[in-house]
Amino acid sequence: MREKFLEYITTNELLESNHKILLTVSGGIDSTVMTHLFHQTDYHFGIAHCNFKLRGAESDEDEKFVHNLAMKFKKRFHIKKFNTNEYSLKNNISIQMAARDLRYSWFNELATEFSYDRIAIAHNCDDIVETLLINLARGTGIKGLTGIKPLQDLIIRPVLFASRKEIKEYASLENIKYREDSSNDDIKYQRNLVRHKIIPLFEKLNPSFSNTIIQETEILNSTYKVYNQELKRIGDAITIQKAPNPILSIPKILSLRMTSQVLYDLLDEYGFTFSDVQNIYNTLEGEP
Amino acid sequence: MREKFLEYITTNELLESNHKILLTVSGGIDSTVMTHLFHQTDYHFGIAHCNFKLRGAESDEDEKFVHNLAMKFKKRFHIKKFNTNEYSLKNNISIQMAARDLRYSWFNELATEFSYDRIAIAHNCDDIVETLLINLARGTGIKGLTGIKPLQDLIIRPVLFASRKEIKEYASLENIKYREDSSNDDIKYQRNLVRHKIIPLFEKLNPSFSNTIIQETEILNSTYKVYNQELKRIGDAITIQKAPNPILSIPKILSLRMTSQVLYDLLDEYGFTFSDVQNIYNTLEGEP
Repeated sequence: MREKFLEYITTNELLESNHKILLTVSGGIDSTVMTHLFHQTDYHFGIAHCNFKLRGAESDEDEKFVHNLAMKFKKRFHIKKFNTNEYSLKNNISIQMAARDLRYSWFNELATEFSYDRIAIAHNCDDIVETLLINLARGTGIKGLTGIKPLQDLIIRPVLFASRKEIKEYASLENIKYREDSSNDDIKYQRNLVRHKIIPLFEKLNPSFSNTIIQETEILNSTYKVYNQELKRIGDAITIQKAPNPILSIPKILSLRMTSQVLYDLLDEYGFTFSDVQNIYNTLEGEP
Repeated sequence: MREKFLEYITTNELLESNHKILLTVSGGIDSTVMTHLFHQTDYHFGIAHCNFKLRGAESDEDEKFVHNLAMKFKKRFHIKKFNTNEYSLKNNISIQMAARDLRYSWFNELATEFSYDRIAIAHNCDDIVETLLINLARGTGIKGLTGIKPLQDLIIRPVLFASRKEIKEYASLENIKYREDSSNDDIKYQRNLVRHKIIPLFEKLNPSFSNTIIQETEILNSTYKVYNQELKRIGDAITIQKAPNPILSIPKILSLRMTSQVLYDLLDEYGFTFSDVQNIYNTLEGEP
């Protein structure tokens, strides 16, 4: 496991030897094992833990657990308590989206303030398969089918090579203690349904279903990149004047006979919703 | 149902009023209902039935059923018996692929010989969702996720708008008799698993899962078209001399840093397998 971890970091060029890394640690098995793996390397790292206060005393015990881990390894410990419910109500978004927003913006603040070069998140390769199936059910277009990337801006995912099973076996072998997540929110319910019910059925169709899907995300990712090259070309062709005061050519848009989806992807940076774009397009088509 | 059927044909420009259509009829519910729907229109049509001789006496009774249907409606009846097992062994392909090959090449022959303008196949909209999930499990890249098209060369699928449930209700309402398919081959087993086990679980994640997937195939189809535009551009850029004696530029291929998948899609017309292309690419990269 240790060797595969270092090899994965090298192969994917996730880190340079002098990099300082912020490990984001919930206290669950994946992030705790990731912390133990980093502890055995020469990398400098600190630990960040978010307390979303969604599960009362349990949330506080998670926090204490991660704090103790940081003290044991003599690492800087960053903690922040969030009022997730309030933020979710105020911004009219789901609890999950609220937790996500709060978490990522805080991590980025920490990286700036404490000069962290990378932010490490403990996704494993089963997460790739589960996320693809959840995104498929939500209908997210190709982007949601391109997998979880090992490196994306400051974010690295250095245990993405390992399956949940391998991580469990390693934790047990090394006698690594971690916190069991007792939450049963929507996300957890969806993941469990996919993990324990849907994937085993797909494995009846294809015994190496998970590997097939991981390869499939890589293929779709290369398709997505080529798609974006062409999208950029179309974007240039319809643009009369660039941002900050963009002017687009309506006759050009109509002459290219693109679908609403393609126009939506083109206008992505301007923050329109898909139905905005459909309305715009229908209006354009109605014009003489 | 009748109105929706005609509307679907018009909206998707599947037929012109003077078109002669070859209906491909197995005798199952979908194709039998399709035949009854066409019988109520002014379109000229003939009926083709393939006897794959895979289920003994039952295959012969299916043939008789479709023959009777054609006689009742006073339509030309085309029948062909295939030795599917032999063809499958001889060409080293699965029974399903063999049946598919034999079927389509015969339909095209009939179209030429008897001047049919279109070949009608009775896929319904549940087939779209099931096919996407089966292709996903097989890992077919984006092409396998772009859905079943209402119109493709000579092929039309005029009942693609209807769900299996709607077709059943219509058959029962109109007292339409059809043959139950008792086969239990691989395809049937896969379809039943997807239909009765996997889709109901996805519906727990998203109650309108099937509609979401149908929209998703349309979105992915528009992505696929844009991808192919760019692919064509890349193909032109690496081509020194065109077919029939194509010469491709190796330095160009390497400089574009494309993935094996993109190269594979580019070389599609030359009939390489994916592992051929990976080998070619690895060899190219090893060259000075």
